[in-house]
Amino acid sequence: MNLNSLNDLFTSQVQDLYSAETQLLDALPKMASAATNSDLRDAFQSHLTETREHANRLQQVLKIVHAPAGSETCQAMKGLIKEGEETIRAHGDATVKDAALIAAAQRVEHYEIAGYGTAATLADQLGLSEAKDLLGQTLDEEKNADSKLTKLATGGWLSKGINAQSTSA
Amino acid sequence: MNLNSLNDLFTSQVQDLYSAETQLLDALPKMASAATNSDLRDAFQSHLTETREHANRLQQVLKIVHAPAGSETCQAMKGLIKEGEETIRAHGDATVKDAALIAAAQRVEHYEIAGYGTAATLADQLGLSEAKDLLGQTLDEEKNADSKLTKLATGGWLSKGINAQSTSA
Repeated sequence: MNLNSLNDLFTSQVQDLYSAETQLLDALPKMASAATNSDLRDAFQSHLTETREHANRLQQVLKIVHAPAGSETCQAMKGLIKEGEETIRAHGDATVKDAALIAAAQRVEHYEIAGYGTAATLADQLGLSEAKDLLGQTLDEEKNADSKLTKLATGGWLSKGINAQSTSA
Repeated sequence: MNLNSLNDLFTSQVQDLYSAETQLLDALPKMASAATNSDLRDAFQSHLTETREHANRLQQVLKIVHAPAGSETCQAMKGLIKEGEETIRAHGDATVKDAALIAAAQRVEHYEIAGYGTAATLADQLGLSEAKDLLGQTLDEEKNADSKLTKLATGGWLSKGINAQSTSA
């Protein structure tokens, strides 16, 4: 990795995010299939649609800085997805497994929140207003996806299911 | 992984965090050595001290639920640290490299914020108030560490250094 300029850093951050999003495009349908609760399955499905748009936006940002998509695999997302796959393979109670899927997904969302936060700040520092807007839109959607998962984890069906499961355990 | 009960999920989440923190204990001194700016170096050093305490707290939480530290490696933190190591090895401008180290560290912080958020919520759902307090203390410290890094990335020396570098590029 060469970091001679702020532009180099920005490009490498956006390429890393692009690798992360494309890995996620493969992983999200598996997360959706593994979910038992229909609200959770819907949340994964609707985030898949958003993720396609996030990847498109990153391609637009890379065009703005005349950079290719890059060939480096985002190692952190690779690890996050490995962890998600362990959860998908886990045995046990369906509600507890759904809670574990939410936990894995929230780690992914927070990774992306950190990544897009950095990239949007760098775009701002470089005066790339269109890129900053595109990255900011995705950042907002990742934050919303995280909030939606928090609501699923702490209120409604999952909380009831878990409490019932917990008291009978 | 067996997820038969909420307690199973809580234990696996805390064991995952313990593996993450012990990996971070090895990585943070390398991040500190790679930083050029003394404020950033100090931030990594002081977070190393906090991280030792975070690992201790997780040991206390595991004692509360009568669980061992576990032998599974946290794959996500492994990936995050690999990414940090790529940054440490990167060539280029010292200020830009410092900005890249901050970006890598903020991804780590957000991973931990997600992990501790989930674990504290589960402790609450399980009625484990002491564990919830211990996890909540660490969650607050991870959030503070992230805010400190944002301040370093957007204000003061780094911003000036990057702007100077950016306009001369």
